[in-house]
Amino acid sequence: MHVGVLTGGGDCPGLNAVIRGIVRKGVQEYGYEFTGFRDGWRGPLEGRTVRLDIPAVRGILPRGGTILGSSRTNPLAEDNGIRRIKENLAKSEIDALIAIGGEDTLGVAARLVDEYGVPCVGVPKTIDNDLSGTDYTFGFDTAVGIATEAIDRLHTTAESHMRVLVVEVMGRHAGWIALHSGLAGGANVILIPEQRFGLDQVCAWVTSRFKATYAPIVVVAEGAMPRDGEMVLKDGTLDSYGHVRLSGVGEWLAKEIERRTGKEARTTVLGHVQRGGTPSAFDRWLATRFGLHAVEAVRDGDFGKMVALRGTDIVRVPISEATARLKTVDPALYAEIGVFFG
Amino acid sequence: MHVGVLTGGGDCPGLNAVIRGIVRKGVQEYGYEFTGFRDGWRGPLEGRTVRLDIPAVRGILPRGGTILGSSRTNPLAEDNGIRRIKENLAKSEIDALIAIGGEDTLGVAARLVDEYGVPCVGVPKTIDNDLSGTDYTFGFDTAVGIATEAIDRLHTTAESHMRVLVVEVMGRHAGWIALHSGLAGGANVILIPEQRFGLDQVCAWVTSRFKATYAPIVVVAEGAMPRDGEMVLKDGTLDSYGHVRLSGVGEWLAKEIERRTGKEARTTVLGHVQRGGTPSAFDRWLATRFGLHAVEAVRDGDFGKMVALRGTDIVRVPISEATARLKTVDPALYAEIGVFFG
Amino acid sequence: MHVGVLTGGGDCPGLNAVIRGIVRKGVQEYGYEFTGFRDGWRGPLEGRTVRLDIPAVRGILPRGGTILGSSRTNPLAEDNGIRRIKENLAKSEIDALIAIGGEDTLGVAARLVDEYGVPCVGVPKTIDNDLSGTDYTFGFDTAVGIATEAIDRLHTTAESHMRVLVVEVMGRHAGWIALHSGLAGGANVILIPEQRFGLDQVCAWVTSRFKATYAPIVVVAEGAMPRDGEMVLKDGTLDSYGHVRLSGVGEWLAKEIERRTGKEARTTVLGHVQRGGTPSAFDRWLATRFGLHAVEAVRDGDFGKMVALRGTDIVRVPISEATARLKTVDPALYAEIGVFFG
Amino acid sequence: MHVGVLTGGGDCPGLNAVIRGIVRKGVQEYGYEFTGFRDGWRGPLEGRTVRLDIPAVRGILPRGGTILGSSRTNPLAEDNGIRRIKENLAKSEIDALIAIGGEDTLGVAARLVDEYGVPCVGVPKTIDNDLSGTDYTFGFDTAVGIATEAIDRLHTTAESHMRVLVVEVMGRHAGWIALHSGLAGGANVILIPEQRFGLDQVCAWVTSRFKATYAPIVVVAEGAMPRDGEMVLKDGTLDSYGHVRLSGVGEWLAKEIERRTGKEARTTVLGHVQRGGTPSAFDRWLATRFGLHAVEAVRDGDFGKMVALRGTDIVRVPISEATARLKTVDPALYAEIGVFFG
Repeated sequence: MHVGVLTGGGDCPGLNAVIRGIVRKGVQEYGYEFTGFRDGWRGPLEGRTVRLDIPAVRGILPRGGTILGSSRTNPLAEDNGIRRIKENLAKSEIDALIAIGGEDTLGVAARLVDEYGVPCVGVPKTIDNDLSGTDYTFGFDTAVGIATEAIDRLHTTAESHMRVLVVEVMGRHAGWIALHSGLAGGANVILIPEQRFGLDQVCAWVTSRFKATYAPIVVVAEGAMPRDGEMVLKDGTLDSYGHVRLSGVGEWLAKEIERRTGKEARTTVLGHVQRGGTPSAFDRWLATRFGLHAVEAVRDGDFGKMVALRGTDIVRVPISEATARLKTVDPALYAEIGVFFG
Repeated sequence: MHVGVLTGGGDCPGLNAVIRGIVRKGVQEYGYEFTGFRDGWRGPLEGRTVRLDIPAVRGILPRGGTILGSSRTNPLAEDNGIRRIKENLAKSEIDALIAIGGEDTLGVAARLVDEYGVPCVGVPKTIDNDLSGTDYTFGFDTAVGIATEAIDRLHTTAESHMRVLVVEVMGRHAGWIALHSGLAGGANVILIPEQRFGLDQVCAWVTSRFKATYAPIVVVAEGAMPRDGEMVLKDGTLDSYGHVRLSGVGEWLAKEIERRTGKEARTTVLGHVQRGGTPSAFDRWLATRFGLHAVEAVRDGDFGKMVALRGTDIVRVPISEATARLKTVDPALYAEIGVFFG
Repeated sequence: MHVGVLTGGGDCPGLNAVIRGIVRKGVQEYGYEFTGFRDGWRGPLEGRTVRLDIPAVRGILPRGGTILGSSRTNPLAEDNGIRRIKENLAKSEIDALIAIGGEDTLGVAARLVDEYGVPCVGVPKTIDNDLSGTDYTFGFDTAVGIATEAIDRLHTTAESHMRVLVVEVMGRHAGWIALHSGLAGGANVILIPEQRFGLDQVCAWVTSRFKATYAPIVVVAEGAMPRDGEMVLKDGTLDSYGHVRLSGVGEWLAKEIERRTGKEARTTVLGHVQRGGTPSAFDRWLATRFGLHAVEAVRDGDFGKMVALRGTDIVRVPISEATARLKTVDPALYAEIGVFFG
Repeated sequence: MHVGVLTGGGDCPGLNAVIRGIVRKGVQEYGYEFTGFRDGWRGPLEGRTVRLDIPAVRGILPRGGTILGSSRTNPLAEDNGIRRIKENLAKSEIDALIAIGGEDTLGVAARLVDEYGVPCVGVPKTIDNDLSGTDYTFGFDTAVGIATEAIDRLHTTAESHMRVLVVEVMGRHAGWIALHSGLAGGANVILIPEQRFGLDQVCAWVTSRFKATYAPIVVVAEGAMPRDGEMVLKDGTLDSYGHVRLSGVGEWLAKEIERRTGKEARTTVLGHVQRGGTPSAFDRWLATRFGLHAVEAVRDGDFGKMVALRGTDIVRVPISEATARLKTVDPALYAEIGVFFG
């Protein structure tokens, strides 16, 4: 059995752990051979391969990023994309393909299996934790840990100067990182994309926090949005107050809070540090087990499936289950956490 | 409603997060009052209390240990223990008691509910992750993270000197910390209490690792045991080789590996650093939610129950379910990880 | 002897360690009494004090920020500022004042001693490490450590996507944080305020790095500036390319690099996380010793002096020596490091 | 110019940073060639070499250990050691040798220069910081940071159980790590090899700490010794109380404290984790600059010299100055820190 492996989409701590798990299991237990494809779907599209054997995966477990490179290339949008992929897989004599990626990468894998008979197994990856069908995705725990440590640090500077500190974390469509790191970091306000926020409420929470003689921390997901009429506009245009929009929601929010409460406010945008570097122990565990079980799925010929976490078990679900809809924060969970606001 | 809170057994990162969650939720949402009992069951036994209100729980989320203190006092083993507890709860006008602890602490709580009608709710706590009924307990993720970071560090010193490094981690009856940190740290051998190990096998793995020109890391749970005939004896007595037993299994194992393979071997015993200090973001999340849901159980009068993690949900299970038997490492899981040995 | 203590200017990890060192030494060794003044010079200006004794400084060593609060209030710019300070010091029966702060705070202290006879001792504080007269100031090592860890993380995401990553660190007038963290983080370009940079050179380094098949990291101090004609304009105005200026030099630089090299570039602005949270061991050591020696200076009546680090010794220098001119990066040192660029 | 490089003695975070600094500077600035010798002096003794060029040093900056391997081999104790080294250097056409190591490794280098005319330059390395002639050696800051973090963690477990925690850190002949980490970690007792300790005094400090309602942390260097008559005996023999000696001073001390004060005491021996893993930013900076300046010394033909830190400058001192005597903790410095004991 000769198995191809690729990693697509944004990078994520744990990708290398998955690759290592796949290769160790496949080679040692079943005598499989492996070929890595470079830079996501661009690899099979252009026939760019790299050798994947035990020496190639040595020492990569604690390393962030992916030794295979990544891209957002969508072969379905390329001329003859499907045909070229099938040809290149045939040329490399690939019997099965393991695709590690998020909604887009797995969506392609699902269509390759269903419509074109390419034997694919999926491994879910999203640092935002917003893929359905799995309790958690690897990379998320690392990102939450980094954001929490940053919030821990910001508390002391907020309190020394009695300032509001707004922390913008990742999460374009789902507020998981904001919710987990905000709770873990003891934030006083957490704003997520799933629920539009009201500036009056935010300012009321901020003000009440100062009354308790503590300086407030506001954690906001990059995709969080204010209510209608409290608009945030695009870069370079004017917002509803006639000001130039400077950057993301975090910076806008700090300005608004300062303007409305009279308290000094500052913004920190965590950005790419959340997705780089060594994975947490939790993510190394999860990613490695995903890799081991992806090989089992290949051995069972269980194509079109994706490995997933359910409780402490690794199970298999149809790839389509994961990509059908985004896993967003349940309003009941957000309400549960609301007891810490203000 | 007036609710008592106590923390019993070994300390564990996240205890303060549970306490804070309980108080914030109870006070803000239901207007409950809280009283803390000092030092586990010794608190209600001797009537030692401390005020628990919102100011008392401020800033404790990131702090390890427990502001209530802890002890291993077993009131069932004390003269008139039950009677004294009931008297002290009555004197303090306590309507319900939340007991945060492991097998022993919760075992007492279960008997107080079942046999003596004391309205108790349990919160599971064990750094070893060996309580049944819940996917994980808080503190475990922190311990695994600390052990993994230590193993990461030991790799470089092992390789610079081409030595074997034996790392002894916590886990007297269950190998969870060894298994998770060993996998995450890229250990070449992981030994757990659930399965007696053979020195020949361990030495074969160690030797094969050197052939791959890497120095081996052996992670061993403190409760792991060699097969019969390869005995480890108690402190101060002589072992089967006529040597004085120096300390734990880690030190013994290093000496045996050195003696049998001719390779230099060193031991590191991680000890108490695994259970101290600030909890990981995962543990702060889990512990806080346990606290919130324990208050819900009190409000529902659902006594004799313990909060527990199932997937991403917090559920309630009978306390007895958690204390009936130890949650040990499934042989199938251990076998799954075995692909990384050697 | 009754000694006042205040902390002024931006907060900095290690301030609490200084305060603790002062109080422990003064109380235990000399039987001094201490009073803290709140929020920098605003404290003595408005007579806002707080009790400082051994219990008050317990547990503060590892905590960032300052238990005394801080401000940038300049009493010399206030009506009757000097007179009010002298009155409040007299009212509190203060015999000597220890001022912990940077250029501005110490500048006031120097004038209070020299022109108005107020017995002040200074402790130098600047996270940017740009005060003269001392080898290092506390807080700097912590900031460098945080920035280095962030750069370590960004390497993996840069390489997975073969992107340029621009990291903007603190340093308005001096490039110490950029230089140290850039070197320690293995950056390929380091830009500091002391030397205007040329975009052509930066782009040449970036391009050469890609040829070595590694993705480049560019570390830029917030105060670094391009050569004349390559202008960065203020917020909200148009820059020389007709674009709206979005934010700091980091974001501008990423856009320019992307435009000129055709390589994708991203910016991370580390911001306030660099100055918050627990101090490094180095900073706790340095800050504590500064506190101990400040008390010695008070005991010796050596006013107008500031404690300072020389090699491994704590010495005293005139406050004016520290505030006379900024300690900037020596061109020879910058050239020495240049061997790692590109 | 063809330059050999070797690393000898115990491994130390920063060794790879030195090697990288040497190669980058030598190749890029002067066009030198480099050859690495494997495993300390065993390399030139047995002619075991490895290629050292720019690709060979890529990515090694943040990695602990040494890519060249290390050993404690002493060529002066080998048959014809000197002759074999000279022959192998000649065979590899080595013009100069950079030896990175501690007292032993540098002692050999000094004799090779002085007595046998081998052109050597030294780079000082000792994690214990006990080499004379330099303010600090790299690796020390990393070790202190690791020990401090461990002590931070142990505080919470000590206080939850009101136990004494004894932490044994590295330092056989000098107490630098104990002093710095003990101060930074807020220890209540610090014991160093330079000054024999009295158990009565230690127990008095421990007891007084409990009165302040805090649990004490005792930091002890592995080489610290009690006063005469309070003997610690060797492994396997009986100590003065007729007990079997279990292991190091830390464990012995905990038993004595428990016996004398009646307080529960536990020991943690940090061991090898202190010398492994990624170097701190400070150590990367120092080690890199040592590497750069070692190449300068080679270029200047300044053999028999060692690079050293003086304040913020890198200077050169005779190797013999570093190896003539151990740099131990000055009694005045120890006394200065004593204000925090008890």
